[in-house]
Amino acid sequence: MTRWKITIEYNGQNYAGWQHQDDLPTIQGEIEKALKGFCQQDIRVHGAGRTDAGVHAKGQIAHFDLDYGERPLTGFDLTKALNAHLRPQPISILNATKVDDGFHARFSAKEKLYSYLIVNRTSFLALDQGKAWLIKKPLDTVAMQEAAYHLLGKHDFTTFRASECQAKSPERTLDELRVEAREYDGEDGLAVLIHARAQSFLHHQVRNIVGTLVLVGEGKWQPEEVKIALEAKDRSAGGPTAPADGLYLIRIDYPEK
Amino acid sequence: MTRWKITIEYNGQNYAGWQHQDDLPTIQGEIEKALKGFCQQDIRVHGAGRTDAGVHAKGQIAHFDLDYGERPLTGFDLTKALNAHLRPQPISILNATKVDDGFHARFSAKEKLYSYLIVNRTSFLALDQGKAWLIKKPLDTVAMQEAAYHLLGKHDFTTFRASECQAKSPERTLDELRVEAREYDGEDGLAVLIHARAQSFLHHQVRNIVGTLVLVGEGKWQPEEVKIALEAKDRSAGGPTAPADGLYLIRIDYPEK
Repeated sequence: MTRWKITIEYNGQNYAGWQHQDDLPTIQGEIEKALKGFCQQDIRVHGAGRTDAGVHAKGQIAHFDLDYGERPLTGFDLTKALNAHLRPQPISILNATKVDDGFHARFSAKEKLYSYLIVNRTSFLALDQGKAWLIKKPLDTVAMQEAAYHLLGKHDFTTFRASECQAKSPERTLDELRVEAREYDGEDGLAVLIHARAQSFLHHQVRNIVGTLVLVGEGKWQPEEVKIALEAKDRSAGGPTAPADGLYLIRIDYPEK
Repeated sequence: MTRWKITIEYNGQNYAGWQHQDDLPTIQGEIEKALKGFCQQDIRVHGAGRTDAGVHAKGQIAHFDLDYGERPLTGFDLTKALNAHLRPQPISILNATKVDDGFHARFSAKEKLYSYLIVNRTSFLALDQGKAWLIKKPLDTVAMQEAAYHLLGKHDFTTFRASECQAKSPERTLDELRVEAREYDGEDGLAVLIHARAQSFLHHQVRNIVGTLVLVGEGKWQPEEVKIALEAKDRSAGGPTAPADGLYLIRIDYPEK
């Protein structure tokens, strides 16, 4: 039995999220089908982050145990085989490596990086339909970054936690929350990227933070009001949940051996 | 009668190109339908570049003449109205401005910029399906840039011209042909962007140049062989036509008034 770690890129638009569901296409479900197609076994795939419906990934990590008998199997071959079975779905295995039996995609994770893409312009999205949140009102990204500082570090994030969140503790430590503005098109369009890095996140935490920062960017809230909202420890004190479309699971880091 | 200039972004994946065709969806056709929906008139829209099926645009330019009577109409209102009629298609009007009667989207153009996106990695594309050319063999982008230098400036580009090209002269002047390598994903993936700038291009010129530069990048050709191919003035001496998927019409510049 060998434990494999895989890196996965996917377009979440037409999936009901990462986690297996009866009768609905999910990323986990499709990868398990591809594994079954490859080795005729029912193998459970464990993901590092259970992304919601519509959320994308450039570097989701998962692990699974595969008994391939005495036959040799390289990471390159496994990647190629899984990708062949996944075609033409927008799910791509970037990499497969053998890991120790102690490795767990979710529990061994040291740090996760999510990025959220907002396109700030008046015209609707042609090239990035379903891949970004379109905000038509001009965003003050300096004010958004100022607001973001209040959320850095260790806090009780109840205000930014989905009511259905199952984590035991509402405490999390945000190691990075950075607002980056880039040119988006030749007109006045702006791409606003919000990068959030932590060991782990609460359910909807990034999307709830983004929804709240956008209130600041639109001038509806002052940056300090984000601090007040955080301290209220009450979901109803926070801003709305940003749509799934703009969220990307970028990278997951594990401790060096 | 007012002449309007519009800037257009589109995802070309499900269109038979820019130019109007009977029974097939085209960008020009859809914009003309949107105009008809807005003002109940049959108006011909003139594009700056007739992009092929599957080619995308971030800054296509077009013009048309609109008789809106005595009623006031701002660029903002026109943009909003056309976008409302275009929904939910992946065609977005970024901007509309009034221009002089002498303005012609195609004939007034001073410079056009196309960029071609190659993703260089072994795994197939999930997030950029239909939006980039996947090359699995590692590309030597330094050799590609060296080869590109041979094509800069004024030349007879017969070698890189589609047989069905209708331009009178095969001579064109390439003002820029730049190969840019960027990180694409957290694995070994590379985004290779080829930027081509000229007053005008021959049919398939950029795609034929890209297909040839890829031969160099893969080590099948030496950079100098691109010069020999150019001097042969024979389409069969050039490399294959790169797929439409990776090509983007980025920007069109016009002389200052």
